[in-house]
Amino acid sequence: MTTTGKLTGVGVGPGDPELLTLKALRALTEADVIVHFAKVGNGSNARAIVARHLKDGVCELPLYYPITTEVAKEDAAYRDVIDRFYETASDLVAKQLDEGKKVAVITEGDPLFYGSYMHLHVRLAPRYPTEVIAGISAMSGCWSSIGTPIAQGDDVFTVLPGTLEECELRRRLREADAAVVMKVGRHLPKIRRALSESGRLSRAIYVERGTTADAVIMPLVDKSDDRAPYFAVVLVPGWEQRP
Amino acid sequence: MTTTGKLTGVGVGPGDPELLTLKALRALTEADVIVHFAKVGNGSNARAIVARHLKDGVCELPLYYPITTEVAKEDAAYRDVIDRFYETASDLVAKQLDEGKKVAVITEGDPLFYGSYMHLHVRLAPRYPTEVIAGISAMSGCWSSIGTPIAQGDDVFTVLPGTLEECELRRRLREADAAVVMKVGRHLPKIRRALSESGRLSRAIYVERGTTADAVIMPLVDKSDDRAPYFAVVLVPGWEQRP
Repeated sequence: MTTTGKLTGVGVGPGDPELLTLKALRALTEADVIVHFAKVGNGSNARAIVARHLKDGVCELPLYYPITTEVAKEDAAYRDVIDRFYETASDLVAKQLDEGKKVAVITEGDPLFYGSYMHLHVRLAPRYPTEVIAGISAMSGCWSSIGTPIAQGDDVFTVLPGTLEECELRRRLREADAAVVMKVGRHLPKIRRALSESGRLSRAIYVERGTTADAVIMPLVDKSDDRAPYFAVVLVPGWEQRP
Repeated sequence: MTTTGKLTGVGVGPGDPELLTLKALRALTEADVIVHFAKVGNGSNARAIVARHLKDGVCELPLYYPITTEVAKEDAAYRDVIDRFYETASDLVAKQLDEGKKVAVITEGDPLFYGSYMHLHVRLAPRYPTEVIAGISAMSGCWSSIGTPIAQGDDVFTVLPGTLEECELRRRLREADAAVVMKVGRHLPKIRRALSESGRLSRAIYVERGTTADAVIMPLVDKSDDRAPYFAVVLVPGWEQRP
């Protein structure tokens, strides 16, 4: 008789290995197989965060993205390649689950908040016992590490992908009391203009690799170039009436 | 010679004691004084979450809110009483810091995301060495515990206080791809109408005490009464085009 395995989506937090939860730690200890997403040629951040906690000789299943940001997302070919990748990845994980294995998919930040894990989750959770362990999101790691209150009281808080059109970004920045712009990368000049035109530039804080030893943190107005990694974030703190 | 103490804002997560981070655990171990906010006559949720990790005989400083939700927030008297409370509370904590103590202020969820800790932070962080330890937010605990992807790809995600006017709620719910309505309490009938009129009611999930053993979770359309605690949340998941 075969027992079905269990899928666990494990949030490992924003980068600082100490921001792992006790529950995530237990899931790593109990897992037969550790799965992570990675770019070919790049280490996985999620794996680096948990490296010290992996059991010796634990089975690992890395899932390498076939393409990353080199192809425009609007491209039908991109959608096609990436959909096939998630299908194949789900099949690989399903095979482990069918063998009765406990599979932990480690994921930077919070698994169900803009995470790659979600693509496995929607395909596998209807068929297998599944648990999701919340993780500290990248944005929360950022505002905490710099001690900046982000939202309070009746503030409306909004997360905006930097990929939005400039007029949309501007309009939504104007309407939010507090905001985080994610997926910055090549969109930085546009984000900067939208912040300026919505009157929010002076409050904006630029953060790269927040919570890690090589974090870059500065008021966005002080950043003199437009180079930014995809995972940089811009924080626009709310609570403007604070004491 | 007196060494100045250190203030640490410690996020203890949404309720499940296993969602505490390793960093929070270390802060609790190192602290000389543990501070928490509480209502008179009610236990503190934050304290219950960490109870098993407190050192025997550690000094504790509970800060009791003078008033809670019985007085309308718009009331000038409310603002006055609550401001004086935070001033007095800050003075009490400052006294410990002046004596060289390490003071950990434990806070449910994430300290700088709508947390009471923020009122101490803005008053004390300019004067004392301060660290903030990110915690899993209540909303993240909720969507994770029910395995519901909340936002993906280019989704705009918005957090709305249930205290907003109905027309504002309706308009903002229409504009967000994914949303969380917080501070539900007596605002539930209004929130329900705003969700219905913005076409989002069928996706809305009602969550009370998410991540705890006595959690209440149901599609909002299935909730037959309008009783809700202040800390209940309503999730409106995005990623509508998911596979």
